[in-house]
Amino acid sequence: MSITIAIDAMGGDFGPEVTIPATLECLKANPELNVIMVGDESILKDMLAQALIKYKDRLIVQHASQQVEMDESPQKALRGKKDSSMRVAINLVRDGDADACVSAGNTGALMAIARFVLKMIPGIDRPAIISTLPSIFGHTHILDLGANVDCTAEHLYQFAIMGEQVVKAVEGIESPKIGLLNIGEEDMKGNEQVKSAAKLLETSSLNYIGYVEGNSINAGSVKVDLIVTDGFVGNVALKSIEGAAKMIGTKLKDAFSRNILTKLASIAAYPVLKMFKKSIDPRMYNGASFIGLRGLVIKSHGGADALAFETAIHLAEIEIEQDVTRKIIDKVAVTLESREDV
Amino acid sequence: MSITIAIDAMGGDFGPEVTIPATLECLKANPELNVIMVGDESILKDMLAQALIKYKDRLIVQHASQQVEMDESPQKALRGKKDSSMRVAINLVRDGDADACVSAGNTGALMAIARFVLKMIPGIDRPAIISTLPSIFGHTHILDLGANVDCTAEHLYQFAIMGEQVVKAVEGIESPKIGLLNIGEEDMKGNEQVKSAAKLLETSSLNYIGYVEGNSINAGSVKVDLIVTDGFVGNVALKSIEGAAKMIGTKLKDAFSRNILTKLASIAAYPVLKMFKKSIDPRMYNGASFIGLRGLVIKSHGGADALAFETAIHLAEIEIEQDVTRKIIDKVAVTLESREDV
Repeated sequence: MSITIAIDAMGGDFGPEVTIPATLECLKANPELNVIMVGDESILKDMLAQALIKYKDRLIVQHASQQVEMDESPQKALRGKKDSSMRVAINLVRDGDADACVSAGNTGALMAIARFVLKMIPGIDRPAIISTLPSIFGHTHILDLGANVDCTAEHLYQFAIMGEQVVKAVEGIESPKIGLLNIGEEDMKGNEQVKSAAKLLETSSLNYIGYVEGNSINAGSVKVDLIVTDGFVGNVALKSIEGAAKMIGTKLKDAFSRNILTKLASIAAYPVLKMFKKSIDPRMYNGASFIGLRGLVIKSHGGADALAFETAIHLAEIEIEQDVTRKIIDKVAVTLESREDV
Repeated sequence: MSITIAIDAMGGDFGPEVTIPATLECLKANPELNVIMVGDESILKDMLAQALIKYKDRLIVQHASQQVEMDESPQKALRGKKDSSMRVAINLVRDGDADACVSAGNTGALMAIARFVLKMIPGIDRPAIISTLPSIFGHTHILDLGANVDCTAEHLYQFAIMGEQVVKAVEGIESPKIGLLNIGEEDMKGNEQVKSAAKLLETSSLNYIGYVEGNSINAGSVKVDLIVTDGFVGNVALKSIEGAAKMIGTKLKDAFSRNILTKLASIAAYPVLKMFKKSIDPRMYNGASFIGLRGLVIKSHGGADALAFETAIHLAEIEIEQDVTRKIIDKVAVTLESREDV
């Protein structure tokens, strides 16, 4: 199955220095992949000179004269940067010239432009950001990670419906276990938003397992495939985990760098520590999907290196192959219809 | 300075098996400490037989015929367990017979009973739960950790005022740096509650440094001493960090247990790994303070072992010695007066 991805080549902290090597790795690995590199033509054609010959039927450069800055306001980027690499890449998805767009650029701007250009899926009120984190059971998917600071129970319910399709597609799980993030597992716990969302989920056809707490993201007592929460809580949880991992990594490194004896121990432990580091490498979890839109947009971490950006492109490949957007549209249509019957 | 702590001897997953050895360690370490062990007299007098002789002027047993179960509803515990070890321990604080109460029991019940028995500090609308977590800079204090699922900006402002006094007392910092938990550091980010709270904090006399993100709890780009958030978000952040630490610990252990070579490496690395483990040992951070009440209540983790419960008792000792409750009352009075002048 031949697929085409539009890459916002200029996005992220490092721009083409990261997006180009990552793209070339993906082109090498997947012969079905076609790429449109979007950005400053003079820079890209120069950096891609050899690759444009090697992949002449599969790689093209699409010029875009502007670039969205990492700290630019979404509204400014939306109104003032109509020829940015980000905007042009998303336009390619809208026009059917690309099956997805991958960008490491400014999250707020990417969401604002994606929403404006691609429009919402009928029946969905708000887009959401979904990503994957490692857990002791494998992976946990979580949404929303920051698109929505205030959510109603209905929004959370819609997130669950959409998120289920993503997990099914990415993990190949028939009926993903869905938990609602709360501050306790008992029925009486939580705020009104969460309690009302629980009622909607309980009466749905989803495999809803009930409330889960923050520890369930990485290491709960039972496996949960998808955790639903609002964008404020989800974003704080995600970043709290990032901070915890960073602190633990720092303390582990400090412990091994303390003196000559600990440094000798680190040599003995090196292969193990390397394997351990790999098992929780955040680069292997890079890439968040914007869902609820009529087109696929994958956001890479802004600070991603080439390996991390590759992971984000792979996520786009999987979601295209699995036709996630179509599956979400179909599921939303069916779910809404069945709800109207009630 | 002679101090007295009432211990809910029956609370927690392990009851007297944990609370007694921890208490005895604390009595040994601090000659100024007096303890009232509250619970089933027949059990406690039996287990404490020798200690009651050894510490005859400093240790007494106060009988309580009931016990709050770990999964009991707060309302049921409040109404139906008037002679529980938890309730009797809190009564001792109200009556001035103890300077603080320490319990590893059911959090919801402890909060409900503490609030009912001790009453709120005038000027404070809601109690909050504050605790400490390790960070790459030392410690970060965070509140609220779950007492309030819905908070207004005014509540968050009150939490900051109270929390500042706790950090000053526990850390000995003159002017703690206070951050407001949000999903970005830019002014435009966040929900209305957070934006309004930021305005209150900006115009206050507190050392408010602005918005911080979840990663700032353990490893932000700058040191923050106190992070303010509502109880839903704070609880999710705390438990997400617990889950991340558990997962990373599991994966590290797995990496070293893989085969004979990795096991040999683990022997070489053992002293380092032990030191590392100690540096992030959650038992060293056990103990959360309930603040906003006219009396000091310290909550230990329910699953605490004796070492962890000791940490919670130590926290009570520090907060009593520093007269934290009095300092909060005074600060709230001054802050409210100065606000009325405006």
